[in-house]
Amino acid sequence: MRGVVLHGPGDIRVEERPDPVLQEDTDAIIRVTSTCVCGSDLWGYRGLDPQTEPSPMGHEYLGVVEEVGSAVREIAVGDRVVGSFVASDNTCQICRAGYQSRCRHQVFMAGIGTQAEYARIPLADGTLVRIPAAPTAQQERSLLAASDVLGTGWFGSTTAQAGPGKSVAVVGDGAVGLMAVLAARYAGAEHVIAMSGHADRQELAEHFGATEIVTERGEAAAERVRDLTGGYGAHSTVEAVGTQESMQQAVAGTRPGGHVGFLGVSHDVEVSGADLFFATVHLHGGPAPVRRFLPELVDLIMTGRIDPSPVFDHTLPLQEAAEAYRAMDERRAIKVMLTI
Amino acid sequence: MRGVVLHGPGDIRVEERPDPVLQEDTDAIIRVTSTCVCGSDLWGYRGLDPQTEPSPMGHEYLGVVEEVGSAVREIAVGDRVVGSFVASDNTCQICRAGYQSRCRHQVFMAGIGTQAEYARIPLADGTLVRIPAAPTAQQERSLLAASDVLGTGWFGSTTAQAGPGKSVAVVGDGAVGLMAVLAARYAGAEHVIAMSGHADRQELAEHFGATEIVTERGEAAAERVRDLTGGYGAHSTVEAVGTQESMQQAVAGTRPGGHVGFLGVSHDVEVSGADLFFATVHLHGGPAPVRRFLPELVDLIMTGRIDPSPVFDHTLPLQEAAEAYRAMDERRAIKVMLTI
Repeated sequence: MRGVVLHGPGDIRVEERPDPVLQEDTDAIIRVTSTCVCGSDLWGYRGLDPQTEPSPMGHEYLGVVEEVGSAVREIAVGDRVVGSFVASDNTCQICRAGYQSRCRHQVFMAGIGTQAEYARIPLADGTLVRIPAAPTAQQERSLLAASDVLGTGWFGSTTAQAGPGKSVAVVGDGAVGLMAVLAARYAGAEHVIAMSGHADRQELAEHFGATEIVTERGEAAAERVRDLTGGYGAHSTVEAVGTQESMQQAVAGTRPGGHVGFLGVSHDVEVSGADLFFATVHLHGGPAPVRRFLPELVDLIMTGRIDPSPVFDHTLPLQEAAEAYRAMDERRAIKVMLTI
Repeated sequence: MRGVVLHGPGDIRVEERPDPVLQEDTDAIIRVTSTCVCGSDLWGYRGLDPQTEPSPMGHEYLGVVEEVGSAVREIAVGDRVVGSFVASDNTCQICRAGYQSRCRHQVFMAGIGTQAEYARIPLADGTLVRIPAAPTAQQERSLLAASDVLGTGWFGSTTAQAGPGKSVAVVGDGAVGLMAVLAARYAGAEHVIAMSGHADRQELAEHFGATEIVTERGEAAAERVRDLTGGYGAHSTVEAVGTQESMQQAVAGTRPGGHVGFLGVSHDVEVSGADLFFATVHLHGGPAPVRRFLPELVDLIMTGRIDPSPVFDHTLPLQEAAEAYRAMDERRAIKVMLTI
């Protein structure tokens, strides 16, 4: 089969890879119908994550089940399915508490690589969620967003306790930040303050429900958020970048007792204990347990109550994955869908 | 009046200070009936907090109201009262959300100094809670604990979401840690794992409800907690020290999705963003909003449902404050009550 492989910084190739086969009796093999490039794929692409050998890429996917292991009970051949970027058993104590991304038997799909024609899905019963009908093209895009960026934004909004009467600030105008705007607005937040210096992303943020745009960065942005919230700071902040500046900004722009959900994969971030102590905010984040939200998200999408599909502003065939990575790296694209 | 003043590292003196007077019409003056030395007083005593001039000391207090400003409505001369270490208006958005320790008009009592015969209490209506009857000697000790260490431990237990069916680890065997043990047990926690290497403190922890004692420190202690919790880590951890080691231990010993309440005043602590991301714990702490819990704590104490009084293992007259500080600094005492 064809699949995307990163050979080194900036070196994305679409090449022949072995067809996946069942390795455990809890596995399934899916034919991937669509996949995409994630902001977190860019860390490796930019050489910021260490790499010693060529890496299959991708962890977002929709597909049709081709084959299941002998222990798979819930998922059947022919099912249309979506899963998240972490395979999980969905039965351990951690999964049952809603943290499937930290399942005791977790398998990160990034190690398997779903930017490919087929993919092996470990722990298929725990990982995959059935799509109840053939999706329209628009629904396919939305469901693909649910596989990671929508689910991650949803986690951020949930963690930040966005809700009626609340002010929610979103740091980061990438796909996850934009999805957090949608999630916060869906949760009923009164004010959704999106931070972006780019006109196209500001427009999309407003489309998804942002009520205010802040163009400043860092401490100036935090100060602007405090100004917009009666001097108190936001009730809720979603951090969707993963840098020292964005984390400090998120904490500084949140009121005492408020909640910060952080989603960006932290790179060289050190949070000052004293700052956190005197900020007195709640801080929670990590790899989003997207699986917790997937059944609800599939339902909201298939019944037309949310439409995250515009987060994909580019679509390319799998064969042009290198251009997809370039477009995202250069911020010419917010998020690129890859069709198979 | 007589009051305790820190002149430099290790240099505690009881000396004449001016009697306090009303400065704002929302102030009250109380005659202090008992006060005590806090673990956080030791940071300054040990020279770890910068000091440029002699500092009045103390922020815990019970007293009787002697005089009130013209705008004070709820509190009257003759009332027996307790307050926390932060004066708060109890009406701003932050107070109403339960974060009185970060009140918009907050005044830290440490800057006023309650280790003295009298004290000025700013924002008296918001700060002080009336004690419904003359307390017994034992109740007086318990109410004094409520002024800070009990209220702080309660905040830690609440923040860590201690409750029925939960495993709660407490890092730190000082007064706050011991009070967190009591609070977690009162909240119905199934397992309360106290960390202590000292026999007398282990005994007191068990008296307050600890079900297991861990004597290791640092990563070894976190590993022991994971062993005691089926490999998952504690549901809830209360950090009550404030050092890099204690914070890392708290995070490492908590399961994904679990809650860490941190109470120790952070000194030179840096939390690694990556560690926090992959730990996927909730982290919340800061100056405890003791005022939130005071009405409940006064009730629980005056009706005999909790008895934190044994946390005071030494009692000295105010005049011997220097010995009180020495005893706590040398860990000969857990917490010293000062009688006036």
